[in-house]
Amino acid sequence: MQIVDLDLLEKFNRLKGAAGTHSPSIATLRSELPELEIKVDACFLSNPYATELFLKYFNEELLSTNEINKVLEFYPSQNKEISKSVAKHLDIDPDQIFIGNGATEIIQAILHNFVKGKVVVNIPTFSPYYEFVTDDSEVVYYSLKKEDNYRLNSKHYVEFVKKTKPQAIVIINPNNPDGGYISNADLLFILNELKDVPNIILDESFIHFAFEDSSMHLPSVVREVSNLQNVYIIKSMSKDFGIAGIRCGYAIMPKDKVAHLLKNGFLWNSSGLAEYFFRLYTREDFLKEYEIVRKKYITESLFFITELGQIPKIKVYPTKANFVLVEILNGVSSQDITVSLLLNYGIYVRNCSDKIGLQGEFIRIASRNKDENEYIVRSFKDLFI
Amino acid sequence: MQIVDLDLLEKFNRLKGAAGTHSPSIATLRSELPELEIKVDACFLSNPYATELFLKYFNEELLSTNEINKVLEFYPSQNKEISKSVAKHLDIDPDQIFIGNGATEIIQAILHNFVKGKVVVNIPTFSPYYEFVTDDSEVVYYSLKKEDNYRLNSKHYVEFVKKTKPQAIVIINPNNPDGGYISNADLLFILNELKDVPNIILDESFIHFAFEDSSMHLPSVVREVSNLQNVYIIKSMSKDFGIAGIRCGYAIMPKDKVAHLLKNGFLWNSSGLAEYFFRLYTREDFLKEYEIVRKKYITESLFFITELGQIPKIKVYPTKANFVLVEILNGVSSQDITVSLLLNYGIYVRNCSDKIGLQGEFIRIASRNKDENEYIVRSFKDLFI
Repeated sequence: MQIVDLDLLEKFNRLKGAAGTHSPSIATLRSELPELEIKVDACFLSNPYATELFLKYFNEELLSTNEINKVLEFYPSQNKEISKSVAKHLDIDPDQIFIGNGATEIIQAILHNFVKGKVVVNIPTFSPYYEFVTDDSEVVYYSLKKEDNYRLNSKHYVEFVKKTKPQAIVIINPNNPDGGYISNADLLFILNELKDVPNIILDESFIHFAFEDSSMHLPSVVREVSNLQNVYIIKSMSKDFGIAGIRCGYAIMPKDKVAHLLKNGFLWNSSGLAEYFFRLYTREDFLKEYEIVRKKYITESLFFITELGQIPKIKVYPTKANFVLVEILNGVSSQDITVSLLLNYGIYVRNCSDKIGLQGEFIRIASRNKDENEYIVRSFKDLFI
Repeated sequence: MQIVDLDLLEKFNRLKGAAGTHSPSIATLRSELPELEIKVDACFLSNPYATELFLKYFNEELLSTNEINKVLEFYPSQNKEISKSVAKHLDIDPDQIFIGNGATEIIQAILHNFVKGKVVVNIPTFSPYYEFVTDDSEVVYYSLKKEDNYRLNSKHYVEFVKKTKPQAIVIINPNNPDGGYISNADLLFILNELKDVPNIILDESFIHFAFEDSSMHLPSVVREVSNLQNVYIIKSMSKDFGIAGIRCGYAIMPKDKVAHLLKNGFLWNSSGLAEYFFRLYTREDFLKEYEIVRKKYITESLFFITELGQIPKIKVYPTKANFVLVEILNGVSSQDITVSLLLNYGIYVRNCSDKIGLQGEFIRIASRNKDENEYIVRSFKDLFI
């Protein structure tokens, strides 16, 4: 394993430091390190076929008609107006829908407005869930166990939460960064057992990549839990619809919570393009095509992850998301593997050394398109065999 | 004055009710009332020549290169990264810059995080300044006087604030909805007298349309006050740069305030297009062209407002913004004038009947492009002469 360019390495490490617990974005890397050739951005948890699909509609409906000019020039509709589209799609009362400028805005809004006191966060996790809490909150970590492959043990978790008596709990399903999936049955068991927890934040941002059987039916529990008065379901659109640059997300929550948030803020927090996307999201023609690329991507990701699992000196953790947690077993640090992949192969993966709750050397690898996935597998074979 | 279509009138009134204190957006009107032909959106406070300029760059640099695909697909840079562009343009420490998803997000962030207790708001005003305050705040209204043409009397205002001892004050310059301008000298006098007010929110969202003399030099006080520890300068990009659909704004504030906001939120609150715009905002080629369209628009607006001022039965209030407050003096309500302009002439103006602090029947009219402004003048002559 040879580091090709120490100068580049030094610059990369500096950028990584500046980005805190998140990876420097590809835009930052491209502008600050133009000499670096990035062939595959495998940090990026997004369905590339969904991006292609969105771009097809974007080209046909906004670019070739010049509608894009209006989308950029004029004020978009307000939060309550856009929520109607999403409500129609989900068949849920629009007063229960809160539209966000990406899911991170929604995480922030919930944690800042409704969560005071103890909040149970399962680790490893997506860091905003503990970074965004206010000074009035105390994060209590629930450690997912390495011997369970970081999968949540529902009964043990329920006991822990009942004993801890928190004001809020956070469940990401499938979980980030390990992709661990909680079945519908287990999740409904948890929600039923924890009716006394005032705030249950359920993040389904990766649910479009999960499945319970080969029908690949979307396993979201939105319909089952939307009437519960203590549950918030958070949904990023960036990953499953491949449009991270647009910043779209929404949450389903009790009406009084939506009303509280809209009472003194969040008026014009969607861009014109976000509004266009949300209108697409309720259209049958788009959704029919989306369903095809969702299943195609799940299938290809399954093949990719299975191939990675054959490679020696690494352990591939079970996942039902569009990424995989990989433990490095050959004694090399995750940082050195990350840098080597980037500088020698042009593959950008997520070094998980800053993820609390992981024991060992871990990287996270996103499934990309078929060619890119094959290139990742070839490069890993080159590196580890 | 004839109402052409009662059915349309009823539908319009319903939409207006649903949008609260803001006008229904043009997008909402277009989608909910497709039978209505809107010829001029004179609600919309935006430089149309700046939109054209932005679209020229957007076409050349994002569309014809296909860079747009990356802008939509990938995560934009984080707040701190984007603030560097703005800091470079303003020649201010990047740690003093907070990037917002439109100015309304920044108003919300400041009011929710730093303002508790009394806040003095001058009325008439932009409603989020009193709507977005939290339950810990008490809004104290300072009434701009009709006999002063709603212009701020600096000495009287300073006395009022000193007596009131608020925790925060809000000054919009030029003010919305009347366009009243506070000169640099008066503003620096106010800031100097009110050093003991913990939070001074200075909204310069319309400053690019203001001028002190025929050189039309930008009269922003950013450079003079950026070192003050009690001042926040808020800047929308929607109006002066004609890109309301992108949602871009920023604020200049003391470093510890920016650090507080970024400590637990506002991580990825800019879209890819917002990031592209902020990069443009620091480029000399773009800014040179922008300066030309800024001055062209100011000049045309001056002619437009002067023409309107000649029309009988209305009073045109003095303004240094890109809009004008107009009082209806012929006994007809502002609501009837608004509806008549919309349904008979296709001109959408802002009915100010919901604006607190105005005494009489008022509408607000935006300056648009030359042809549209001429059409507005012709229609007004038709309506009032």
